[in-house]
Amino acid sequence: MSTFGQVFRVTTYGESHCRSVGCIVDGCPPGMALTEDDVQPQLSRRRPGQSNLTTPVAPTQRDEKDRVEIQSGIECGVTLGTPIAMVVRNQDHRPHDYTETDLYPRPSHADWTYIQKYAVKASSGGGRASARETIGRVAAAGIAEKYLKLAYGIEIVAFVSSVGKACMPFIHAQDGAGAKSKAILDDFYTMLSKISRSDVDADMVRCPDAACCEEMRKEILEAKAENDSVGGTVTCVIRGLPAGLGEPCFDKLEAKLAHAMLSIPATKGFEIGSGFRGTTMRGHEHNDPWIKRDAAGNDRALGTATNNSGGVQGGISNGEPVYFRVAFKPPATISRNQETCTYDGVSGVLATRGRHDPCVVPRAVPIVEAMAALTIMDALMVQAARQHTAGRLPAIPLQPSMSGKAPAPNAAGTEGALAEATE
Amino acid sequence: MSTFGQVFRVTTYGESHCRSVGCIVDGCPPGMALTEDDVQPQLSRRRPGQSNLTTPVAPTQRDEKDRVEIQSGIECGVTLGTPIAMVVRNQDHRPHDYTETDLYPRPSHADWTYIQKYAVKASSGGGRASARETIGRVAAAGIAEKYLKLAYGIEIVAFVSSVGKACMPFIHAQDGAGAKSKAILDDFYTMLSKISRSDVDADMVRCPDAACCEEMRKEILEAKAENDSVGGTVTCVIRGLPAGLGEPCFDKLEAKLAHAMLSIPATKGFEIGSGFRGTTMRGHEHNDPWIKRDAAGNDRALGTATNNSGGVQGGISNGEPVYFRVAFKPPATISRNQETCTYDGVSGVLATRGRHDPCVVPRAVPIVEAMAALTIMDALMVQAARQHTAGRLPAIPLQPSMSGKAPAPNAAGTEGALAEATE
Amino acid sequence: MSTFGQVFRVTTYGESHCRSVGCIVDGCPPGMALTEDDVQPQLSRRRPGQSNLTTPVAPTQRDEKDRVEIQSGIECGVTLGTPIAMVVRNQDHRPHDYTETDLYPRPSHADWTYIQKYAVKASSGGGRASARETIGRVAAAGIAEKYLKLAYGIEIVAFVSSVGKACMPFIHAQDGAGAKSKAILDDFYTMLSKISRSDVDADMVRCPDAACCEEMRKEILEAKAENDSVGGTVTCVIRGLPAGLGEPCFDKLEAKLAHAMLSIPATKGFEIGSGFRGTTMRGHEHNDPWIKRDAAGNDRALGTATNNSGGVQGGISNGEPVYFRVAFKPPATISRNQETCTYDGVSGVLATRGRHDPCVVPRAVPIVEAMAALTIMDALMVQAARQHTAGRLPAIPLQPSMSGKAPAPNAAGTEGALAEATE
Amino acid sequence: MSTFGQVFRVTTYGESHCRSVGCIVDGCPPGMALTEDDVQPQLSRRRPGQSNLTTPVAPTQRDEKDRVEIQSGIECGVTLGTPIAMVVRNQDHRPHDYTETDLYPRPSHADWTYIQKYAVKASSGGGRASARETIGRVAAAGIAEKYLKLAYGIEIVAFVSSVGKACMPFIHAQDGAGAKSKAILDDFYTMLSKISRSDVDADMVRCPDAACCEEMRKEILEAKAENDSVGGTVTCVIRGLPAGLGEPCFDKLEAKLAHAMLSIPATKGFEIGSGFRGTTMRGHEHNDPWIKRDAAGNDRALGTATNNSGGVQGGISNGEPVYFRVAFKPPATISRNQETCTYDGVSGVLATRGRHDPCVVPRAVPIVEAMAALTIMDALMVQAARQHTAGRLPAIPLQPSMSGKAPAPNAAGTEGALAEATE
Repeated sequence: MSTFGQVFRVTTYGESHCRSVGCIVDGCPPGMALTEDDVQPQLSRRRPGQSNLTTPVAPTQRDEKDRVEIQSGIECGVTLGTPIAMVVRNQDHRPHDYTETDLYPRPSHADWTYIQKYAVKASSGGGRASARETIGRVAAAGIAEKYLKLAYGIEIVAFVSSVGKACMPFIHAQDGAGAKSKAILDDFYTMLSKISRSDVDADMVRCPDAACCEEMRKEILEAKAENDSVGGTVTCVIRGLPAGLGEPCFDKLEAKLAHAMLSIPATKGFEIGSGFRGTTMRGHEHNDPWIKRDAAGNDRALGTATNNSGGVQGGISNGEPVYFRVAFKPPATISRNQETCTYDGVSGVLATRGRHDPCVVPRAVPIVEAMAALTIMDALMVQAARQHTAGRLPAIPLQPSMSGKAPAPNAAGTEGALAEATE
Repeated sequence: MSTFGQVFRVTTYGESHCRSVGCIVDGCPPGMALTEDDVQPQLSRRRPGQSNLTTPVAPTQRDEKDRVEIQSGIECGVTLGTPIAMVVRNQDHRPHDYTETDLYPRPSHADWTYIQKYAVKASSGGGRASARETIGRVAAAGIAEKYLKLAYGIEIVAFVSSVGKACMPFIHAQDGAGAKSKAILDDFYTMLSKISRSDVDADMVRCPDAACCEEMRKEILEAKAENDSVGGTVTCVIRGLPAGLGEPCFDKLEAKLAHAMLSIPATKGFEIGSGFRGTTMRGHEHNDPWIKRDAAGNDRALGTATNNSGGVQGGISNGEPVYFRVAFKPPATISRNQETCTYDGVSGVLATRGRHDPCVVPRAVPIVEAMAALTIMDALMVQAARQHTAGRLPAIPLQPSMSGKAPAPNAAGTEGALAEATE
Repeated sequence: MSTFGQVFRVTTYGESHCRSVGCIVDGCPPGMALTEDDVQPQLSRRRPGQSNLTTPVAPTQRDEKDRVEIQSGIECGVTLGTPIAMVVRNQDHRPHDYTETDLYPRPSHADWTYIQKYAVKASSGGGRASARETIGRVAAAGIAEKYLKLAYGIEIVAFVSSVGKACMPFIHAQDGAGAKSKAILDDFYTMLSKISRSDVDADMVRCPDAACCEEMRKEILEAKAENDSVGGTVTCVIRGLPAGLGEPCFDKLEAKLAHAMLSIPATKGFEIGSGFRGTTMRGHEHNDPWIKRDAAGNDRALGTATNNSGGVQGGISNGEPVYFRVAFKPPATISRNQETCTYDGVSGVLATRGRHDPCVVPRAVPIVEAMAALTIMDALMVQAARQHTAGRLPAIPLQPSMSGKAPAPNAAGTEGALAEATE
Repeated sequence: MSTFGQVFRVTTYGESHCRSVGCIVDGCPPGMALTEDDVQPQLSRRRPGQSNLTTPVAPTQRDEKDRVEIQSGIECGVTLGTPIAMVVRNQDHRPHDYTETDLYPRPSHADWTYIQKYAVKASSGGGRASARETIGRVAAAGIAEKYLKLAYGIEIVAFVSSVGKACMPFIHAQDGAGAKSKAILDDFYTMLSKISRSDVDADMVRCPDAACCEEMRKEILEAKAENDSVGGTVTCVIRGLPAGLGEPCFDKLEAKLAHAMLSIPATKGFEIGSGFRGTTMRGHEHNDPWIKRDAAGNDRALGTATNNSGGVQGGISNGEPVYFRVAFKPPATISRNQETCTYDGVSGVLATRGRHDPCVVPRAVPIVEAMAALTIMDALMVQAARQHTAGRLPAIPLQPSMSGKAPAPNAAGTEGALAEATE
């Protein structure tokens, strides 16, 4: 439904043409400095009409301001721990008058499925299936991100990794195993370790690889010139995540991330770490060896030499960067006539209406970051519940095989036969 | 955590070496014929030791019977609507004695992350991270599947679509656009429309393409010979699904499926419909045109000519087959020595222990089917709640643009200007 | 937290002095006629300043308009099935300046507990603990009530049953068993079967018993004259409820109602049916005998001759009126000096501030109705999910002892020994 | 449904005559010593047949052992943090043969409502509506109670406070205000502060007041002699609870407790603190003045001089003892013929079957304690999530009116006008 999260819970509302869109964030930690200025930047990065690459920008076509207004839950710039409601007004909320094009459910849009589900749909735009619905998520994530940064130094950065057939080298390099591929992957991991949002925003395509960026721009402009659209992928890295997040068995960290990402409109796929390319690898090369870490003042002394796991093992974060990639289909709204049929099953041609966004992936970047932040924030709070209740228990001695701590020399219990346990 | 679903809710329990594993299924529709014989077949398909391709089969190594015992919720072979508890006993539940190998967290296993999360872990096997945990899911899904079949004729069939580099032709064909690719894809869609579980089980590799099956077998045996392991992908199709399932915005059908699949141990990726390959397509070729359907006695008069959407639009099923692919990494447990380090950060070699399953994808087939069934069952019940409460409301006239029904000739409201709505 | 309901879900937000208060209603059945006019009446009944019995009414003191603005989820006056956000602006949302009185946590208020919980609190009024928070609930219930009325003819009416020591006769009559008591109770049940909101609103005390009403008014005015406050009880009846609502074991209908009612500020107790007085009765007089019902066109052929059960048995509605009583303490805010201590533990006197509502129960009437409506609406939808999924199963013959249907004459299985089953 | 709790989640299963009853406890803090011996004592206190006051004890009638078997989630006597499944076998699980009495839905039982809800019911005993269902709750609470004791020193003690018309003096004393009443109440609060379970178990009636106990025994034996049953109330105190538990607005601590208590079979009412009698008090006498507390080493420096609030304010615990009272109706199963009608609406007499428990309140004592423990445990974990995430934020200065801390002398912001805020 429209709520995400178990303890840090976000509920969104709004269609493309109703009075406003927004959300309620319930469960925000109290005592955090927060103003609308913390929330607005990502909303502005998400906004249509930022460049002629994405949504057409003629002022008469698009003039959304998308200013967020916090309704509750903060006072004097401090969170109270109570629900934080946020509202972003829609500029246009007239119901839509019927036209010829309404005879047709738009191909690969949600018109027909909404009517199957609800027996009624919003008259105009995408209704609740519109990308405008994501405003509530991005606003909510502004709060989560501020917390993650302040309390843990966690950074979340997403970027465009492919547009159509133009893709960053790491995507294909991962399939090979030669020296060149290894170099490409090393560059990729280095990039993940330091890329920032301002790096990403250096070009409106939001791909940090300058050469690749040009190819992507060409894909977009070509699609635009042909009144067509083009898909792409967004890759995201989460750095500074503590180990221990994610709830086996159903709410593994990767499962929640996958859920979060596939809830974004127009997504068709998700992969974490080695992902689909990892399925072609052998175990001995896919396994990430443990190494000692330089971790000042904490007990997470270990890290991994490689990161095919993508920062999760057994559904739980291991302290390495979490990275994943999300597939976006080409936008269904195109400026071309399409052969299809009416709601009544009569074949015909759905005429083009207006000009449209040829590619959504640059604008999807902050949305992917938002859903990542919401997922991590909730996982952190659930783990805090466990960790701090467990921390009040009297310490009890554990078997070495249950604690990862080697037994004292000559201690009992070290010589038994190993129970075979392959499952 | 360990509960999945909003109305049809499954809660599982159990580690690899405790007394038993199992689940409670809450919310099962009452009045359905059900015995253990409905649940056992998929448990047996899931069981290790079915062939020398997967888990080694020497009787002393593996002799799990995995017989399910229903504890509650049925009487005289009929479901009561009350919680159905199911128990499968573990054969071996001695705690594990400490050995040299316990000095090391196993690479790409959950040993280290469990200790980070819980500060304690099961001494033996994979504990809760073991694939044995999936028994509860598969048992629960036996109930869901029976319902889906009886009440809707829904069929769920999964199969191995790749092992290592050996993959079914449709996977790469989808990247091209030539005539040959088209033929391969046509074959793929035809196969999806009729494949059965017995087709899949004709070969223990569980790939329905005989030629490809041989290549996969070679991949598995080669990995086995090298004391290594190999990954793969499982593709799953759901046929007969009514339109209207899936709950925008966060619980879109594909989001819940992705969540479900990424909660299976060893998974690294999920894609629905055109998936990652769809990101390279143009909108005009990716859009699925609507066509009239021959649907006796229902109002779902439309279908799609192609199915790049994978049966979902706007997060809601459209009545076409839902299909998706899941990526499994190569098993982390291999029969080779591995350079790694101890819990204390001391570099060393983790010695091999025993022989292990070189490839899990054939056994993952019923687990993928199970999670699909649980997801669909819950989505069906949530939609039933809406549909049948809405169905009691007095009918009210809807604007044509809200109903997909053309206005009567000369009716008012058909001439207004179209509100531009691209988002 | 701030969400109520499993399928029909309400999330509220807002403090007494933030920008606005309101809610998001998720899961509303689509296709229902709905405008702000459906929601406003109960908000107006809830509003402070309706009479000089409750909140003081001088215009400078209270001038809340409490006009609801629907933000989303409806179009052209029809619900879309998507989340319905509602906003009611606060008139005054300046942060509060510190004064002498802020040295003291107010006795029996939430000042101190909020600081213990959140380490921060809203500076003014009751913050989130204010009765103003209930606006979101009452608005949400306007939607639920409209559905319940349209689809099931369900009616929910609450009234003031006691103020201080002035109470309606049924409350004490229930303890006795004489002829007079029986007559009083008969009158009570008759009243429950037909009382309407306009009956209740005939007097601003909102007690339908004219004589009792006068006594209550005296209690209120006496408390007011003494700068004191007084508590009371609200009784509520739900008529027209279908049998079968409520979810064993934890979500029994009475359990959810109790949860709902005790979540209203200032409540201290809940009883359903015979309630606490039933604890003094014997089983043979408390048991409600079954009788044939005149139920046109449905299979709920039975009713009960008495209704000590309060319309629920085993946590499930039985089709008889559900009635319950809710205890409200005297308001903690009084216009008297109080001996207490400061946050720092220094004894002192908290000086009076202004004039306050001596009695909240008349205004609590629509809030009790609201929480009842939200509880019933959710229970209905959960039951619809079960009933309509079960309804698609092929019929199977049931044992007579499982179906309540007598076996055919000479049928097998009627002679076995009775298993003793007292638990 | 059958799951209780948000973070510490208990799911129960089982009918009176299926194979076993039990539960899964998900979210238990890891690293706690736990064996079946921690769980068994309360199960034994709950068991029928403990005395001739409650369930008849002839060995042929009742010989339940109710031994719990832990299936998972612990190893070597330590909790792993994974789900803990527990099973208690039923002695008798034959389906019940049809007899004459099955023609009749039992008055005030769940026979008829289960059939309305599920269209099928268990053939024998109470099925899921049986008190036997509470075994899973009591087992789960054994774990929660151990944690609460070890980590916080929290104690939960319930006792029988009335049986029929025999009731402990505090119940009526609370209505008065004279010196004698004050003395009775003082005794009551003193008793609450130190009563233990062994005090309660000194007499099988489980009332700690010896004189009252005798009267209660007479009520029970009298009802028994008359083949009748009698109701009663159970009062429960929770001591040592930290301040800050309970989640506004819907999940106030008293709301969750009410939910928990009304989910116990046969309950009809709940009141916390002053409860229903508080509704007759004036605000100035009901308000609990703050006093300085001797609280070594914590910042909860305040307590209350009286405790009409019952330990909660604004839905949040204030550190004082939480106490509440629960109403139980007389058991519906009586050893008398009853005039009623059949499922088909034919009037007739339901013949008595066997001998039955005349009074359940002594056995309800551990069940009330169990539900209290589950409620508190979950509230603690949710608050831990908030508190420890908030605790990682950088400290920021708060306005005095937001923090309960007096401003420094001559500080700004102390002279502003007080915003009137009566709601």
